[in-house]
Amino acid sequence: MISWFQSLRKQKDALSKPLRKMLSRDDVDETTKVALEDLAPSIRHYLGLVAYLQLEVFEAASRAMAAAPNLAAKETLSTAAGLALAKHQAFIEEIRKRGLEPESVMRPFTPSIDEYIERIETGDWIEMVLNVYLVSGIFDAFFAELADGVKDSYAKEAKEVLAGDTGRDQVAELLSATIASDATVGDRLALWGRRLVGDSLLIARSALVLSDNPTDDNQKIEPVFSELIATHIRRMDALGLTA
Amino acid sequence: MISWFQSLRKQKDALSKPLRKMLSRDDVDETTKVALEDLAPSIRHYLGLVAYLQLEVFEAASRAMAAAPNLAAKETLSTAAGLALAKHQAFIEEIRKRGLEPESVMRPFTPSIDEYIERIETGDWIEMVLNVYLVSGIFDAFFAELADGVKDSYAKEAKEVLAGDTGRDQVAELLSATIASDATVGDRLALWGRRLVGDSLLIARSALVLSDNPTDDNQKIEPVFSELIATHIRRMDALGLTA
Repeated sequence: MISWFQSLRKQKDALSKPLRKMLSRDDVDETTKVALEDLAPSIRHYLGLVAYLQLEVFEAASRAMAAAPNLAAKETLSTAAGLALAKHQAFIEEIRKRGLEPESVMRPFTPSIDEYIERIETGDWIEMVLNVYLVSGIFDAFFAELADGVKDSYAKEAKEVLAGDTGRDQVAELLSATIASDATVGDRLALWGRRLVGDSLLIARSALVLSDNPTDDNQKIEPVFSELIATHIRRMDALGLTA
Repeated sequence: MISWFQSLRKQKDALSKPLRKMLSRDDVDETTKVALEDLAPSIRHYLGLVAYLQLEVFEAASRAMAAAPNLAAKETLSTAAGLALAKHQAFIEEIRKRGLEPESVMRPFTPSIDEYIERIETGDWIEMVLNVYLVSGIFDAFFAELADGVKDSYAKEAKEVLAGDTGRDQVAELLSATIASDATVGDRLALWGRRLVGDSLLIARSALVLSDNPTDDNQKIEPVFSELIATHIRRMDALGLTA
């Protein structure tokens, strides 16, 4: 499992340029779906990754909730936190059903995900809210698609769990209201979103080296991210932010 | 509603001495239940208070989860956080059912509860865990008893919500394991617990001035707290801590 982190670190530099290039508005590549399926990890790795990522989305949402300036924002963020926690718990339950220890299944992924969470940590409340909005958006979509390639009967249920409500519409409203109330917030969030998506896609990409047919071929992997990025851009657009 | 905070502040000094006295192991006063019922607030105040307190228990548990040193502790605390959030959401749902705005129902109580939460804030992880354990213990028991006096058909359901699982057994195990592993932790937690219970009972007491028959008579109010304190002492005993 050590190789997972090593390759994650190695890929970081190689990845940042093509990602940045992809952030320009290219058309979505039609081969995406097939390629992503081919790169799916085993069910054990899959469960460990999604379970821990949902726990971290929960943590990010609770942190934003604790820093919220008013009760309405607190409600929105505690709801988002609770929904991410419920997803985490659904995956933990599945891990236990298989007679596995959740800690040992998640542990291989904690160092790199913790490092990612540290990188996107911010003391600014509205940036925390953007974290919740974008991170859950990117990973729910990515892992739902990746499930198609996981050779296990649980894959379908995993997709359903991930497709479940995230409370993100209300989080988006919170962002829009704050952007509308202060002309400087939009620019700041646009910058923050760009940083966030790069780091998040790096985590998503690192999941792909866990497959039985891992590839270091960027040319092969790049199309996989086109749809994720297109969705991310639509999400930023909806907030009136430049991706 | 302003008077609630004013009287809370006024009572603080008057209360601290009898509370400290009560922390000695007196027998439980048999009149407790009756007296507490007589001092119950209206359903609206009751819902605002329990809803916001559960949100703060959730926040305390998430904070402890974020600071947890390992995945097993993280699991225990995220479960406790989720259960407190579910209780909060049950009360919010009831507030909404009544056509009321959750924010306006909770708002009168946020300044003093926020102030309380700040007072019991700590950078020490195991003290955060003790917060979760004791605060949820004290308030779940207190508000469940107080419900008996609330003149509303929802009172019975509120009691059931509060009696629901809190994940506190696992939190207690976490505390016991840490106390066993380091001889200095027990003394530190015993001190912290004493501080915590004083501040928590102050919040509980402040709920009593919301009733239709508020009283400033300490002689009348003191027995109300005997059972709460006895339970608190048993809880500390179970951890091998001196209350």
